[in-house]
Amino acid sequence: MGAYGWISLTTDYGTFDGFVAACHGVIARFAPDVRVIDVTHHVPPADVARGAAVLAQTAPHLPPSVHVAVVDPGVGTDRRGIAIGTPDGILVGPDNGLLVWAAEALGGVETVVKLANEDWFLGDVSRTFHGRDIFSPVAARLALGAPLTDAGPTVDPATVVRLADPVVAVGDGWLEAEVVTVDRFGNVQLAAGGSMLSGLGPELLVGNVKARRAQTFGDAGPGELIVYEDSAGRVAVAVNGGRAVVVLSVRPGDMLRIAER
Amino acid sequence: MGAYGWISLTTDYGTFDGFVAACHGVIARFAPDVRVIDVTHHVPPADVARGAAVLAQTAPHLPPSVHVAVVDPGVGTDRRGIAIGTPDGILVGPDNGLLVWAAEALGGVETVVKLANEDWFLGDVSRTFHGRDIFSPVAARLALGAPLTDAGPTVDPATVVRLADPVVAVGDGWLEAEVVTVDRFGNVQLAAGGSMLSGLGPELLVGNVKARRAQTFGDAGPGELIVYEDSAGRVAVAVNGGRAVVVLSVRPGDMLRIAER
Amino acid sequence: MGAYGWISLTTDYGTFDGFVAACHGVIARFAPDVRVIDVTHHVPPADVARGAAVLAQTAPHLPPSVHVAVVDPGVGTDRRGIAIGTPDGILVGPDNGLLVWAAEALGGVETVVKLANEDWFLGDVSRTFHGRDIFSPVAARLALGAPLTDAGPTVDPATVVRLADPVVAVGDGWLEAEVVTVDRFGNVQLAAGGSMLSGLGPELLVGNVKARRAQTFGDAGPGELIVYEDSAGRVAVAVNGGRAVVVLSVRPGDMLRIAER
Repeated sequence: MGAYGWISLTTDYGTFDGFVAACHGVIARFAPDVRVIDVTHHVPPADVARGAAVLAQTAPHLPPSVHVAVVDPGVGTDRRGIAIGTPDGILVGPDNGLLVWAAEALGGVETVVKLANEDWFLGDVSRTFHGRDIFSPVAARLALGAPLTDAGPTVDPATVVRLADPVVAVGDGWLEAEVVTVDRFGNVQLAAGGSMLSGLGPELLVGNVKARRAQTFGDAGPGELIVYEDSAGRVAVAVNGGRAVVVLSVRPGDMLRIAER
Repeated sequence: MGAYGWISLTTDYGTFDGFVAACHGVIARFAPDVRVIDVTHHVPPADVARGAAVLAQTAPHLPPSVHVAVVDPGVGTDRRGIAIGTPDGILVGPDNGLLVWAAEALGGVETVVKLANEDWFLGDVSRTFHGRDIFSPVAARLALGAPLTDAGPTVDPATVVRLADPVVAVGDGWLEAEVVTVDRFGNVQLAAGGSMLSGLGPELLVGNVKARRAQTFGDAGPGELIVYEDSAGRVAVAVNGGRAVVVLSVRPGDMLRIAER
Repeated sequence: MGAYGWISLTTDYGTFDGFVAACHGVIARFAPDVRVIDVTHHVPPADVARGAAVLAQTAPHLPPSVHVAVVDPGVGTDRRGIAIGTPDGILVGPDNGLLVWAAEALGGVETVVKLANEDWFLGDVSRTFHGRDIFSPVAARLALGAPLTDAGPTVDPATVVRLADPVVAVGDGWLEAEVVTVDRFGNVQLAAGGSMLSGLGPELLVGNVKARRAQTFGDAGPGELIVYEDSAGRVAVAVNGGRAVVVLSVRPGDMLRIAER
């Protein structure tokens, strides 16, 4: 297995404490020439689905990397730490569903190992900060080119924890899908792939609010609701100059129906 | 044209989503040895003037760089993407006024090109995320040393969109100026250059609040208002141990009058 | 003295302005091969004790570095700028107590110099932004291997400003300690070292709230209060799936009593 020049970090640690810097520091000590890209550290605390979605949508745009993700309410319990090999990088983190969507976005799960090689951990592993004490030093070793299977025994990929796939349904002139994320701009992203828009006409209802199909925000007048394929290839809803999340009053996990008027 | 070792990023993307990391990732893929400095990603959504001000005040302190800036409510419409060559770096982003103040801070506009060379874009350009699909890969090529004019046809600098210059007026014992920015500490920065303070005595009124001329926060007692030349060379108002923006109740775009008592 | 490959930054500058990027830029100009780790820029404005605590708990996890810290309400007054040499890195910042706890965490104060060599400063030092104009360029020179004593005259370590050490008291079946930090997750960290837990049984009261001794969050039921040794080796209080800071209604500086039931 070749070496990786990059490690990415996705966590719910925030940036008010020194947690992220401690991970950077551990990586720098073990793999000083590897560079770090911070995906985000503002996953809401313990929101595994949000972390999984952001990582899956971002990782394919990075160079081949070891991706560390830590949204880990079960830290220190008997939930496993794992590493997943994919055709386009390695994922390292807790086995709680956080990594699987990203693995699929990177070409699919090839190998899964349980992190058990304590020689790769920091000397004195805390019970509450595995990002620093286990996942970062393991990622550093993998980035330097150590074989994935040196991190621990392989495990059956079928035993890896999966989040429930978000619900999507489509019919004649309508689709229903779960809200996956709401971004900084208040744009509401659905689980439905963008190709599902092809069956819909230009005049729509999102819930009971009038909307139109469009390609970008400026295609609609100020305040108008648009339905479009977003930059991650998903169906999304936006308001030109406004916040669709406020207009629609939804949040991740809610179902949204889009239908022709 | 020589190569640049640095790319800077200034956006309104926030850090809750993976947008910034996707730009870092694209740059890393195309120009792995170039390093990235994040100016800020917390420009308020679509606040072009704020983005322009922060970039103009920060870029001169960076090494010669390709500066990418994206505050882009018109993304995907027919607003142009441009790159501006200056004596001390290149600016890349939408043609909506975001880049011009920084170009002037870097020595002036030398060359402007319209970004039209699609070979430099990501293969499948989205309509809503040109930071990832156009501006970052173009910046990577320019940082690697590709000629600016390979990015697209030159355009007349006089056609580049400018924001209205903020209002400044000065008279005998007074000045009036638009608020340009309010910083993290609540300090209120005006459009007036610091040299305009030379005509004013030590005892002042800011609006109708008593203030004194000073050089730093500790020159006044706790809670006292001071007028000083800030670290960007502008006239600014601060409160020792407090937030001038609260005392003065102003925001960017408001006019503020400073006069001798 | 050897060179350092890393500079860390800890400030109260926030990330909404360009202040942090200006420091990165100055470092890049003077020491382009040195890499920067951001510890945090979200120290509450002027909260020296918070900055000191975060830096002290994070710095030992970084590779040997020049650590720049700027929480500096007295900037531009006659408070000194200093650099402290330790066995495991150098600290640079204002002499207001911000650096000493970190120096002790890095092995102790060896040498202190007053920053007085103006050849190392930016040409035109502002009165309000010494992070950019003094501390960053000084750190860059030190990282490149310049001797610490070239930064200015040595000063007696006994004259360096210290914050009051937080209060800790321990007795038979109880301990009392000052709250040092509250982290992103609402976990409440006390000044008491984790070893002080050894004298306590499993059933506790924190203030007047029932709690139990544990090692990690999942050792308790949802909503239960736990007392544990945190990843920085301190006694801390958490709620499984909740925010201890809300349950306990405390903030840094408050005293908290933990006693056997």
